[in-house]
Amino acid sequence: MNEQYDTLRAVTWADEQLMLLDQRLLPQQQHYQRLNTARETAEAIKSMVVRGAPAIGITAAYGVVLAAKTAYAQAGENWQQAIMTDLDVLAQARPTAVNLIWALERMKTLFADINDDPVPTLLTEAQAIQQQDIAANRRMGELGTTLLPAHCGVLTHCNTGSLATGGYGTALGVIRYGYATGKIQQVYAGETRPWLQGSRLTAWELVQDNIPVTLLADSAAASLMRQKKVDWVIVGADRITANGDVANKIGTYSLAVLARQHQVKMMVVAPTSTLDYQLADGEGIRIEQRHAEEVLSCGQQMIAAKGAQAWNPVFDVTPASLIDAIVTEKGIVEQPTTEKLKALANS
Amino acid sequence: MNEQYDTLRAVTWADEQLMLLDQRLLPQQQHYQRLNTARETAEAIKSMVVRGAPAIGITAAYGVVLAAKTAYAQAGENWQQAIMTDLDVLAQARPTAVNLIWALERMKTLFADINDDPVPTLLTEAQAIQQQDIAANRRMGELGTTLLPAHCGVLTHCNTGSLATGGYGTALGVIRYGYATGKIQQVYAGETRPWLQGSRLTAWELVQDNIPVTLLADSAAASLMRQKKVDWVIVGADRITANGDVANKIGTYSLAVLARQHQVKMMVVAPTSTLDYQLADGEGIRIEQRHAEEVLSCGQQMIAAKGAQAWNPVFDVTPASLIDAIVTEKGIVEQPTTEKLKALANS
Repeated sequence: MNEQYDTLRAVTWADEQLMLLDQRLLPQQQHYQRLNTARETAEAIKSMVVRGAPAIGITAAYGVVLAAKTAYAQAGENWQQAIMTDLDVLAQARPTAVNLIWALERMKTLFADINDDPVPTLLTEAQAIQQQDIAANRRMGELGTTLLPAHCGVLTHCNTGSLATGGYGTALGVIRYGYATGKIQQVYAGETRPWLQGSRLTAWELVQDNIPVTLLADSAAASLMRQKKVDWVIVGADRITANGDVANKIGTYSLAVLARQHQVKMMVVAPTSTLDYQLADGEGIRIEQRHAEEVLSCGQQMIAAKGAQAWNPVFDVTPASLIDAIVTEKGIVEQPTTEKLKALANS
Repeated sequence: MNEQYDTLRAVTWADEQLMLLDQRLLPQQQHYQRLNTARETAEAIKSMVVRGAPAIGITAAYGVVLAAKTAYAQAGENWQQAIMTDLDVLAQARPTAVNLIWALERMKTLFADINDDPVPTLLTEAQAIQQQDIAANRRMGELGTTLLPAHCGVLTHCNTGSLATGGYGTALGVIRYGYATGKIQQVYAGETRPWLQGSRLTAWELVQDNIPVTLLADSAAASLMRQKKVDWVIVGADRITANGDVANKIGTYSLAVLARQHQVKMMVVAPTSTLDYQLADGEGIRIEQRHAEEVLSCGQQMIAAKGAQAWNPVFDVTPASLIDAIVTEKGIVEQPTTEKLKALANS
């Protein structure tokens, strides 16, 4: 169903090449890079041609296919030795993205059983990783939508859509499905300073799929809630700790506090691979600080006075107590706790 | 005291001309416009060369001086008839700014007693309006600072400084005085999307006066509070209703909700002329919506996808219950109520 609301793929394999939609140029230009080597792939990940943890993992899996192609052409049956340097280069492209390492490990487990040209087997696996990601997103879209009231308004943050995943999206997958099935009437998106993923990516993606979207300055979300224009805030996650605390794009915690004060519900949508059972709670998450220039400028334009400093944390941590539901491909966890998330892992 | 932290004037009278620092060009260029007629002055107000309600009122007062000069040169003793058209043009420059009308009325009350060249009398009055505004701001700076704990961190929003007033500033006046007297150790400023008054104006003004300032994306304020980096949020006001509800730049209400949740105090700094006793509470305030383009772009640059819509309220309303103190030149009102503000009016 609802194929008309899912037309976009940021990562595709075509004509024996990896094609990446260059997200640095959106929304002004829609340009696909064509990649033929693992090194080009690593460089594309590093320079943010592709971003979003699931999309990075899938890109890396295709990078292994390209690496194997090169290694088999150069070294024949000794390709497994020849490929190692390229795998290291891929692994180091963005070392903090858990999904990247996970995808490389999954591809490597196949090596032992390959006796001939490795490309067909590895390509099939990379495509399976992408298809499974899309399937998980569609499942989360259905599950998340069951929580929504009829004719509702929703607010999202950052970009969690086809651009950030294999396709369809996590939080934006729920919004796609909820809109397609008529439950969601109005989609709001915070512009998501400083990188403007909301304005540049989410709005573009929704416009492509004919889903109307209304952007707002991040600081206007409280007024939007006060005017009862939204029923649910729906966001993704970069990491979820064992107790249900959620690390996500800066501004998520702010929305969670404001939502609770305005009787608006808070939904986090993420595949179970985002769950980090090694960390008891969000206190253990190190919050990356990025360059001050991201805040002091907007796109190519300096906006702040010379001499001003900036505080630029990329993520914040939302405590589990402010989250009404975590939606995964394995099921929904309402009012998350360590016990409920443990049960999900064993389900 | 602390003159070194108050070096800037956006509105000045020099060489028989009105000089306005063009705030549209900040922080990239520091350019003063020289104005010789009331019509030029009205145009400068309309096109935002000058902004901030108190600064607009003072500018209009000087505009009356320029209008009188022209009228007296053209019509001699009949200048009071000749000036009327120019007064209308000034009044219509930004009809919603209360201070503009207030300043024009105050200048007009002098007309009846002038028998000769009106310029000296009117210039003295315009300069008095500016000096009284600065004096009120200095008084508020002292009063507001008494509320602060030692070695504190503060967060402000939008621009309420010398650029928005006759000089020194309202909320930024408290920050100037608090920094000069050693009570404030760290000043944070939200960038204040969509117009970026925080990045473009407040940061520039503080850098000019050697007060260190750290900017942040508006959505990062909640994390800043959670990390206990700020003790007080200090903001200005566009209008305060009889019960203490405050209309101010979009994002103020969000900060007030977040402050209360994090045991951070909320201070509103505004002269008593900002008090609107005609309105019982904030429900009666009409919130202006501005062009979607302000959100869809950043400076000269379009950032959002074509086809995206935007919700762009300029102000929000913070209920009195979330405000810990309203600081005026007549005194401080803690936990504001209709009774307390009525007592202030009669003091």
